[in-house]
Amino acid sequence: MSEVYGARRARLRERCNAGGSATALVTRPANVRYLAGTAPRDAVVLLGEDEDLLLCRGTPGTRPEDGRPDERLRIHRLPGPAGDPAVAAADLAVARGAESLAVEEHHLTVGRYRALRSVASRLRLTDLGGAVEQLRVVKDEEEISCLRIGAEITDQALAELLESILVGRTERHLALELERRLVDHGADSPAFATSVATGPHAGRRGHRPTDRRVEEGDFLSVCLGAAYRGYRCEIGRTFVIGTSPADWQIELYDLVFAAQRAGRQALAPGVAYRDVDRAARQVLDSAGHAEGLAPSMGHGVGLENIEDPQLAPAAMGKLDACVPVTVEPGVHLPGRGGVRIDDTLVVRPEADGGPELLTITTKELLAL
Amino acid sequence: MSEVYGARRARLRERCNAGGSATALVTRPANVRYLAGTAPRDAVVLLGEDEDLLLCRGTPGTRPEDGRPDERLRIHRLPGPAGDPAVAAADLAVARGAESLAVEEHHLTVGRYRALRSVASRLRLTDLGGAVEQLRVVKDEEEISCLRIGAEITDQALAELLESILVGRTERHLALELERRLVDHGADSPAFATSVATGPHAGRRGHRPTDRRVEEGDFLSVCLGAAYRGYRCEIGRTFVIGTSPADWQIELYDLVFAAQRAGRQALAPGVAYRDVDRAARQVLDSAGHAEGLAPSMGHGVGLENIEDPQLAPAAMGKLDACVPVTVEPGVHLPGRGGVRIDDTLVVRPEADGGPELLTITTKELLAL
Repeated sequence: MSEVYGARRARLRERCNAGGSATALVTRPANVRYLAGTAPRDAVVLLGEDEDLLLCRGTPGTRPEDGRPDERLRIHRLPGPAGDPAVAAADLAVARGAESLAVEEHHLTVGRYRALRSVASRLRLTDLGGAVEQLRVVKDEEEISCLRIGAEITDQALAELLESILVGRTERHLALELERRLVDHGADSPAFATSVATGPHAGRRGHRPTDRRVEEGDFLSVCLGAAYRGYRCEIGRTFVIGTSPADWQIELYDLVFAAQRAGRQALAPGVAYRDVDRAARQVLDSAGHAEGLAPSMGHGVGLENIEDPQLAPAAMGKLDACVPVTVEPGVHLPGRGGVRIDDTLVVRPEADGGPELLTITTKELLAL
Repeated sequence: MSEVYGARRARLRERCNAGGSATALVTRPANVRYLAGTAPRDAVVLLGEDEDLLLCRGTPGTRPEDGRPDERLRIHRLPGPAGDPAVAAADLAVARGAESLAVEEHHLTVGRYRALRSVASRLRLTDLGGAVEQLRVVKDEEEISCLRIGAEITDQALAELLESILVGRTERHLALELERRLVDHGADSPAFATSVATGPHAGRRGHRPTDRRVEEGDFLSVCLGAAYRGYRCEIGRTFVIGTSPADWQIELYDLVFAAQRAGRQALAPGVAYRDVDRAARQVLDSAGHAEGLAPSMGHGVGLENIEDPQLAPAAMGKLDACVPVTVEPGVHLPGRGGVRIDDTLVVRPEADGGPELLTITTKELLAL
């Protein structure tokens, strides 16, 4: 793996040099992990002209799922618990004769920024912007393989839940049960707080489980994902409780399913992010559901459960191969409930068979 | 409750006026909740000269455990998903003729700060510092009552686990089981990631559960807490697995127990934070465990699971009545394991009976 991290830092260094700064300070935890292999609390990466450093307080990499620090990276441990590794890094950059330092202004607080400036008043601070986030968009096969394993775990956890009796159980319990099963099957942890929504809650994006119990005739929507070696996939499905769905339920399900399929089918290298959004969104729009739709129809996944790209109307940019994204349209009818269907897929060229579906749980409307 | 939030904002306003800024922008989520009663994602509080506002994107206060917005607070909902409520607040402050705005430099990123400045170039931005955090240190009886209920829930969850068979189960499973029981008994959620540490892991602060199974003869240490109406308590206990503890286990347990008792007994209004730390620390120091001790012997709890004050050697300040803190010394012997004992207590004057212990699970060394 060492070559991987070194290559990532080399790409970032190229960008920095092009931006006029030979040294960079990376503080955002997911970015630190991407460049260093691990991200202990408050650790930072100092990208130097000749040598790169991981500055941290504790001992990094004590659990396999936290990743191991890249062996080619020099590790600098701060002696006490008090110091800020970012400030120590700025200090070091000055000592090595750096003239400018690119920092992540979207992550660093004003307070820490001032502390950096005070130890390194002669250092010109520039903005690294989302340079590391941009590098993270296209994944290598090792990263995709982590997402694939995470998706398998997630599918297993969901399959087991569907075999159990659901009526009478609360949203909270079902969510905890799913999370236990994720860990049982080898997840580091849930990728995000599991959402279970029943009856009038069903179909709400990001619904946080309540004490409402599953009832006959309910829609039941779930959204969950496993974190595996730091990589976070996502799946969402909606079911009906009872023997036979009502007509409005079938109709709504078919509509959201059509929107989700349209979004999936739009995924290809070179397609604009906004066109994937539009493909899904217009199906729901034209059925009269324009109001209340989510601001995006999907997003990238990786070391964070929501990352670039956003598949949204105002998003700029085009898909590349090897970009994993969710496609997750949904409709929620206030007071009645609704439907969300959500997959994680990897963009692939048509020659390779088109988008690779990672979350393979059926999208038929199951009556449970 | 409305008077409570209004009174908190009035106290903050006094501080701001004393600091020369009549308006303040609060962005840190726990601080927003403290002042507004709820803190939807990205919501901010604008403390104005005449009127206070909660600026947010969604609909606040849909779940009881998220709190309800103070009715006297005007709510300003941003129309789209894109805007930053902090920037909208700065815009509004300018429109109302404010000349300066105090912001939380320890929370606001450089990027957001620049965005504020660009919409409000004529506004003088000052630093609010930890003013809200300081107000939060002393709790009212309603806040303490939430912590007390949280502690009862936590004690119940732990008591049930102790009745079950432990040998052969993994740290991860025990942690998930504890978290399920917390929610069963009415917690909003776990207050923080539950720690379960067995054998050589036992006694490690913040240990994250692994797949190691409980074995006969192990030390088993757990650290957990319930969040109840936003308030987060904490308990830590260490047990021995099997019929009779080894001599070194009894000796180590007695030592940590003595240190924890010394820390608890030091809690009183007017006592310096560092003196509480020292009371516990010197018991461990003088037994030869100075190396490897945690940087603090305890800390405040409330809307965050670690907040001011820090009970640490370099901490400045003195305890007040009605400050809830943890006392949590521990010793970890590499390769062998160790002991941690952790309570949440509220500082009370001696006339009121001294420190109030919220987490009442026994601290006898149980052999399970």
